[in-house]
Amino acid sequence: MNQDELKKAVGIKSVDFIESNTVVGLGTGSTVYYMIEELGKRYQAGEIKNIVGVATSSRSQKQAEGLGIPMKDLNDVDHIDLTIDGADQIDKNFQGIKGGGAAHLLEKMVATNSHKNIWIVDQSKMADKLGSFPLPLEVIPFGCEKTFADLQAEELHPEFRLDDNGKRVLTHNKNYVIDLKMGEINHPHLLAEWLDHQVGIVAHGLFLDLVNTVIVGRDDGPEVIKDVR
Amino acid sequence: MNQDELKKAVGIKSVDFIESNTVVGLGTGSTVYYMIEELGKRYQAGEIKNIVGVATSSRSQKQAEGLGIPMKDLNDVDHIDLTIDGADQIDKNFQGIKGGGAAHLLEKMVATNSHKNIWIVDQSKMADKLGSFPLPLEVIPFGCEKTFADLQAEELHPEFRLDDNGKRVLTHNKNYVIDLKMGEINHPHLLAEWLDHQVGIVAHGLFLDLVNTVIVGRDDGPEVIKDVR
Repeated sequence: MNQDELKKAVGIKSVDFIESNTVVGLGTGSTVYYMIEELGKRYQAGEIKNIVGVATSSRSQKQAEGLGIPMKDLNDVDHIDLTIDGADQIDKNFQGIKGGGAAHLLEKMVATNSHKNIWIVDQSKMADKLGSFPLPLEVIPFGCEKTFADLQAEELHPEFRLDDNGKRVLTHNKNYVIDLKMGEINHPHLLAEWLDHQVGIVAHGLFLDLVNTVIVGRDDGPEVIKDVR
Repeated sequence: MNQDELKKAVGIKSVDFIESNTVVGLGTGSTVYYMIEELGKRYQAGEIKNIVGVATSSRSQKQAEGLGIPMKDLNDVDHIDLTIDGADQIDKNFQGIKGGGAAHLLEKMVATNSHKNIWIVDQSKMADKLGSFPLPLEVIPFGCEKTFADLQAEELHPEFRLDDNGKRVLTHNKNYVIDLKMGEINHPHLLAEWLDHQVGIVAHGLFLDLVNTVIVGRDDGPEVIKDVR
């Protein structure tokens, strides 16, 4: 199977975990796209009833609305029962990096407000250690060169993320994205702790101790790794 | 002396600490206003030469420019030698709350990038413990009701800051302000630690272990409390 087929297989498989009468967080990304398509099908067929979706991006919001799935804002639901999202890299302890798409602040808000989180990925996302995928940070433009210098001084290999025209990418909140190209992150919890305390960094892409179930797209079919915490 | 006279006296006094050939961070607020006025006078008189100012707000930026003080952006200086700013409350251990004016994210960026920090306040700002002045937080609108509920669950007495029309105040970064009306903050470091880890909170007004010298406006003249750390 090619990568796209692997993504489609896990996206479809993950919908098995969505129960009727629940609030479902809908992540963002190419794998999540297939999950939302499948959810729309089963919802329209009446196999899954009475759900409310909460999206992490306008893209997922529009896709779900187009399929007739009732959607609400995070502020307008009591809680989220289950969120299904992708991940950019997952290590052997099921810690993750997210935010290749610069949406990690909203994704982390939804994830931390969900009773359960499922990540759906193709097998290329699984790694022994995190870090070969760049770790994205959202930084405020004011004083960002100072923030960048601090990251350099800590040898975290920062690079501003640029668009195709060589201009700095802006997030939804008009902040910049800095990617840390560290190669290997040996101590994700210590790094997260340090990043949390930096004034100019409003969010980072380390998603630690958050996921409960991981579904990995393998050549011989989706592998479900349940209850990792 | 009335409060305004106390503010003016400390504002003027603090300029004694600004040396020629330095980069000076200029805070924001009614006490800082007098400091910038006095700095402008001494700069124009040639008593203080060759300085560069870095402002924490457009208000201070315009005031300093109007007085002919050369200004640069934080991103365009190597470092800041000394920042003079106000504070909303200072406790007996010289920990502070800032952000009544909702500018604390930029103020904290400047403060943490300064070799030395001086706070200038009238005597009404000095307290045994922090907390009778509300502690401001900058929160992202996405999921802010969840953030609010978490703060309530921790018994931190949150209130959204509203403008005169009853609408939620927006910061420079289009975030909301939540004030924590706790009365007394018994463990400022533990509170800061907890707040730093909350996903939806991008900044808080606890300025801990940051100030070096405090100048307090007293009825019998400014009291200079040097080298508190």
